[in-house]
Order: sequence, then C-alpha cells, then structure tokens
Amino acid sequence: MKLAFPSGVRAVVITVSDGCFQGSRQDTSGPAVADLLEQAGVAEVASEVVPDELDAIVAVLEAAAASSELVLTTGGTGLAERDVTPEATRRVCERLIDGLAERMRLEGAKQTPLAALSRAVCGTRGRSLIINLPGSPSGAVTSLEAILPLLPHAVDLLAGRTQHEGAAVPEASRHG
Amino acid sequence: MKLAFPSGVRAVVITVSDGCFQGSRQDTSGPAVADLLEQAGVAEVASEVVPDELDAIVAVLEAAAASSELVLTTGGTGLAERDVTPEATRRVCERLIDGLAERMRLEGAKQTPLAALSRAVCGTRGRSLIINLPGSPSGAVTSLEAILPLLPHAVDLLAGRTQHEGAAVPEASRHG
Amino acid sequence: MKLAFPSGVRAVVITVSDGCFQGSRQDTSGPAVADLLEQAGVAEVASEVVPDELDAIVAVLEAAAASSELVLTTGGTGLAERDVTPEATRRVCERLIDGLAERMRLEGAKQTPLAALSRAVCGTRGRSLIINLPGSPSGAVTSLEAILPLLPHAVDLLAGRTQHEGAAVPEASRHG
Repeated sequence: MKLAFPSGVRAVVITVSDGCFQGSRQDTSGPAVADLLEQAGVAEVASEVVPDELDAIVAVLEAAAASSELVLTTGGTGLAERDVTPEATRRVCERLIDGLAERMRLEGAKQTPLAALSRAVCGTRGRSLIINLPGSPSGAVTSLEAILPLLPHAVDLLAGRTQHEGAAVPEASRHG
Repeated sequence: MKLAFPSGVRAVVITVSDGCFQGSRQDTSGPAVADLLEQAGVAEVASEVVPDELDAIVAVLEAAAASSELVLTTGGTGLAERDVTPEATRRVCERLIDGLAERMRLEGAKQTPLAALSRAVCGTRGRSLIINLPGSPSGAVTSLEAILPLLPHAVDLLAGRTQHEGAAVPEASRHG
Repeated sequence: MKLAFPSGVRAVVITVSDGCFQGSRQDTSGPAVADLLEQAGVAEVASEVVPDELDAIVAVLEAAAASSELVLTTGGTGLAERDVTPEATRRVCERLIDGLAERMRLEGAKQTPLAALSRAVCGTRGRSLIINLPGSPSGAVTSLEAILPLLPHAVDLLAGRTQHEGAAVPEASRHG
C-alpha cells in the first residue's frame, strides 16, 4: 500500500458548526484535522467554516470538490436537529464509499460506543474524495487516523493513476 | 455515556408479520422487545401489529413517529418476497443512521452468520428514532441489546438535549 | 444453516472490465468466481463480459436476474473514473442487503486494508440475488468465500422456501 500522498495534493477542511460560524465557539476540530493532513504530507490545506445549513454545506462542498483532491468535513454528523452534513454530502457525491465510513465507525467504537451514532458518509465527486468526520476533536482525529493510510491510494485511483500503470501496490493487495 | 432514559419516554413496538396480523401466528417477538424496553426504563410502551404491506408499514411508522420518541419494528427485514420493512423505513426516515444497523449485525453475527442477511435500517423522522429489528425473537432481542445502551443518548440528542447543555457525557466520549 | 444449494440453481458471473471486453486483458477473476460456485454445488454457471459502461452493466444485470437465481459481478467496484458497477447495481436492485457487503469488507480487511475501498453492493431483483465482487482475482475470491455459506439460505428465502415451511434452519439461527 502506497503510504505517501502524491506531491501537490490539496485538501479543504470544512468545519460545519453554527457555533464556530457565529464565533461563539472555538473551532478546535478543524485545525486538528488540518494538522494531521499536513503531517501526512498533504501539500496544501485550506480551511472553511459553515453553519449547519444544508444549502450552505452543499455549496461549500461543491466548490471544494472542484478545486481539491481531498475534502474533509468535521461536525454535523450526529442526531441533533440541525445535523445535516451527511445529507448534504449524499447530495453532492456521485458515488458513495460505504467501506470508509464503516471503517471509521469500527475504529471509533474502540474509543466509545457512541461512534455508532456517527452518520458520517464518504464518497466521490469528480476526482475529489469527500469524507465526513465527527465534530468532536477526538472523534474527528480517531476517524481520520482510521482511514488515513488508505487516502494516498484513493487519491491516486481518482486521479487515474491506477495500479495497472506501474504503481507499487503488490498483487496480493489489489482489491479494486 | 448516559445509561438511563429520560423520564416520560414513549416507545411503539410494531410487529410486521402477515401471520401475526391474521392471527395464524402468535407474536412472541413484539412482547419480547417491549419487555426489554420496559426493563430499560422506557415509561410507556405501546404495541401494533401490521401485515407485510409497504403502505401499511409506512402509515403505522408515520403515526408512531409523530407520537413517540422510539419506534421499533420487528419482522420483515429478511429476503422473503414480502419482506419490505426496510423499504418502508427508508421512505419514512429523513436521516439514516447506518452505524446502528452495522452494530446490530456485528453483534448478531456472534450468534449466527445469518445476521448478515438482516436488511434492518435505522434512522430518524422528526424527533423520533426508528429502528428495524429482525423478526425472530432471538434475533430481535440480540439486535436490540446490541444498541440499547446508545438509545438514551440518542433520544436526548433528538430532543435537543445536547451534551453541550450539561449532560454527563465525558469529553473523551463525545463523538457527534 | 443450510450449506448446500438447492438443485438446479443457475448463476451468471459478469466480468465488468473494459480491458477484458476489448480483449486486451485476460479475465482471470470471472473464471475463478465460476469455479468457486461450481465447487459449491451451483448447477449451472454462465459467464458474461461487459465494459465499464453504466447502461451496458444495467442491461446485462437485468437479463441475468431474469434468468438466474444468482448474479455475481467482478470488477468496477473501485474508485477509478469508470468504476460504476455499484451504481448500476443500485439502479437494478429492488432491495439492498447491506450486511453482505459489510461482511465481504470485514473479511477482505483481514487480507488488505484496501478492502475498505471496495464499493461493492448486494441486493435483490425479483427472485434473484445480485452480488458485486472486487475486480482482482484474490479480492473476488476472498469476498465470495466470506458470504458463500449464506447464499444457499438466501436463495431459498428468495424462492419462497422459508424456514417456516420445514427447512432445516434451527430456531436459534433464525434471524429474518
């Protein structure tokens, strides 16, 4: 499995939170996610903050996907009335990747059984990979760490760099 | 994690079964689910029996969700031709909670590999949590027990009582 | 759990691959899947090869489901631009069986973490069970082996032979 991101990969981290958008709450999850991506070798990490509004989330997801290989959200995946990040994500994605969301919940459940309540969705739009993370800093970090080793390969596949064109994925781990 | 239901929580247990509706079969799953809820501290548990008809299930789900914080079905989640409870549930739910269904199947698989064939769906409609359980008494009880500890917290979140408003959820287990 | 397929069960194995369709690549996954089914007692196994085109996949899935109890695809479940087998399968299926896809990914993850990127979907159309498998021979075989013991029972349920009509499923393993 390829562990390094290709050079020049751009990510957008979107914090979905009424409180952070209004300034009544400090965003710690967004920066924690951005740090993790930078440490993993993502070249450029931009940040956005949006309120828990379906249309606003859809708009920022579409813009981010048009400009970046990776789009990560934090927040709005729970059961509170205004938690609609997964609904916005489903609307924007052309293809879903259920296995990434399953993997995040499986790893999250080792920390807290409440991970099962995360409604996070992952998918693709064009050549961009969109990933919902929970809103709490610990939940966001745990979830991202659970799938981070898979993301360089995913970005490669979305960019059209398949394993058949000489990548270093050994036969035994081909699974497409 | 909050382990007790808030006072006054109402549940409706819906048995989906042609045989039970027609009276040719005794409903043991519905009462087993109701017992479990009462033991867990749900204040009021009502029961309904409907045939395996999509429109009938949709109607009873809508009515139950309008009046109750918890709506649980048992039956109709399998592969038989008339098993359509998940389809009715998807139609009624505004938001899906894949993680609860995953959790039920994971725990169910410890009892029988056939748990993988349960097509149970969970989601929300308004402030109500809707949960499909398998039709067999043992499958229904195993599945409910797998997620029962999460339900008080889920009911709180749906009611607008979030952890930020003073609930006893420790920081480490916040995962919204 | 019933381990043998009923007599006369027909399967269609569909290889979804531009390269195999055009003849520039040899199909090894399709034959590997067909071998496994024959060893498991499936009476008749037919094979098809289609390109990674949504409409072509939909058409061959519909035809296969109309004539066979089991329809298995291999290929097109990944993230490459032309991987659309799950989208075609969702369009064709009347009911989804998330638990089978979860089970395949869980078992696949024991071989390679990349299994989480398989977007395989399972479901039913009429009395036919449709299952997506990954495109690599090892991924396809691992995934099929993960659920093969469940398929005879699933075929029985879809055919209307339920456990209530005298099948050999013990009470403890009923989970419908």
